[in-house]
Amino acid sequence: MVHDAPIPRRNGEALVQVICAGICNTDLEIAKGYAAFQGTLGHEFVGRVVESPDGSLEGRRVVGEINAGCGHCKLCAGGDSRHCVERTVLGIKGRDGAFAEFLSLPSRNLIEVPDSVSDEAAVFIEPLAAAFGILEQVEINGSHDVALIGDGKLAHLIALVLAQTNCALTIIGKHKEKLERAKAFCPHALQIETHAPGQDFKGRFDVAIDATGSPSGLATALDVVKPRGTVVLKTTHHGVTAVDTSQIVVNEIRIVGSRCGRFGPAIDLLSTGDRALRTLITGRFPLDAGLLAFEEASASESMKVILKVA
Amino acid sequence: MVHDAPIPRRNGEALVQVICAGICNTDLEIAKGYAAFQGTLGHEFVGRVVESPDGSLEGRRVVGEINAGCGHCKLCAGGDSRHCVERTVLGIKGRDGAFAEFLSLPSRNLIEVPDSVSDEAAVFIEPLAAAFGILEQVEINGSHDVALIGDGKLAHLIALVLAQTNCALTIIGKHKEKLERAKAFCPHALQIETHAPGQDFKGRFDVAIDATGSPSGLATALDVVKPRGTVVLKTTHHGVTAVDTSQIVVNEIRIVGSRCGRFGPAIDLLSTGDRALRTLITGRFPLDAGLLAFEEASASESMKVILKVA
Repeated sequence: MVHDAPIPRRNGEALVQVICAGICNTDLEIAKGYAAFQGTLGHEFVGRVVESPDGSLEGRRVVGEINAGCGHCKLCAGGDSRHCVERTVLGIKGRDGAFAEFLSLPSRNLIEVPDSVSDEAAVFIEPLAAAFGILEQVEINGSHDVALIGDGKLAHLIALVLAQTNCALTIIGKHKEKLERAKAFCPHALQIETHAPGQDFKGRFDVAIDATGSPSGLATALDVVKPRGTVVLKTTHHGVTAVDTSQIVVNEIRIVGSRCGRFGPAIDLLSTGDRALRTLITGRFPLDAGLLAFEEASASESMKVILKVA
Repeated sequence: MVHDAPIPRRNGEALVQVICAGICNTDLEIAKGYAAFQGTLGHEFVGRVVESPDGSLEGRRVVGEINAGCGHCKLCAGGDSRHCVERTVLGIKGRDGAFAEFLSLPSRNLIEVPDSVSDEAAVFIEPLAAAFGILEQVEINGSHDVALIGDGKLAHLIALVLAQTNCALTIIGKHKEKLERAKAFCPHALQIETHAPGQDFKGRFDVAIDATGSPSGLATALDVVKPRGTVVLKTTHHGVTAVDTSQIVVNEIRIVGSRCGRFGPAIDLLSTGDRALRTLITGRFPLDAGLLAFEEASASESMKVILKVA
């Protein structure tokens, strides 16, 4: 699952020496069988370019868009490989990931990290971009009443993004101490509840975002969203979920699946300060303690666990 | 479940003598426990107004919008009671339905049926409006590749609606003879398949509409829709469905629940001809043979079964 043997640079790609990598809930789900991936895990990283085909970015500190498209289909030609059917995905699909000393990615996937962003903050660029991805898909502004369901690391990043929109935000979670911490990420969040929603929340929100990482998150989102409201689904997990689909029909709910976002907005936001992101890091491990790091990341009280590689 | 005792007119509402009523898949699901409704079923009907509070429409042939709102909430004040939280719904929620000699509805729910629309065609106005409801929620035009999953009575009406949009339509069903009949409803449908979709259909359609009435329809829709495509969910049934929600997230699919539509477009379309709708009627029963009619409607080869009341 985690190994540190150097990997050869793929033909025509850049070779990156990994500095830090973050463990994501998706990694934990892949370890349970999700996405049927076998190879080196890891898709949140910051590293330094060792070699690139035309020498560009060599020696620079970079993060990388994780979807590597075929480069010539309609989507790739349009500059968005995120849904290229031939794509490989770093540490998720057909491509070894960042829990290693080196990784390979096409140069076009790499983006230089400004000096003002620390290594540890840079590890959050990929998941923060995924949080910003919500705003690519769903309009959220100051007129919207939004429920964020979940209090884990992705939920915190989504709170940080939603703080930019001036929406009225309610974070609904189960862990008191995590919810307390979330306040730093969205100071204007109206209510933070430590229990599952009851009648008070039923049908109340314009938008409900499931960032629980758990199969139960969707049911909560469907319960608290208004008729004709929008549920944003960020949770990926191994296995199927029992859903009351008639509720979706009767209340004419719109569900929007949301995965990866653009890195630009995430880098821009972090360039102006690390926004307490480092308070999310609850464990730091060397690469050769990868299995221990995974154990730590799996613990319910954990937030972000980082592998320090170089 | 079905009784023919006259019902008193509700305070301030119109009393309608039912002429014909149609049995819908929702009625069959309610009989299995869906929506926990106890009372007289039936929400597809044409009737004649016997009495109304101000005498309007008396003696006229009418159909009726099935959602009766509180009349004073924001939604009702805006002219759309379909999601009023206090609503009753004819034959579905808190209000006896059309499988009876008489029914009661607010006058504002009633719409006169033009002479050019026969009684039997008028029974299709409510479900045809539900099919038109899709176009209130999702843009479908000549540039879209659309899959309609299902070959039952609602699927036929959706095919009729989609024929107006000039989309490229593929109807995917399991019953050869029903699919043959569907051609009359959308003559330009590109392909009609008699089997479940295989690799040829995977990720191919901009929009996939589940009108199967079966829990399996959603999985098929998720399979055939493109990444970032739209699944329209029309199926309501009793019980929960096992859904691979990660597929929704990874492919960033949008799911849109769709229930009731406006009657206007349905009446306008039927006014110009009955569009072979009567070929959908596979059984006609008197009201006092209601249970037999339900048995007939439950048979897999059945299409629309009509109760002839007056």
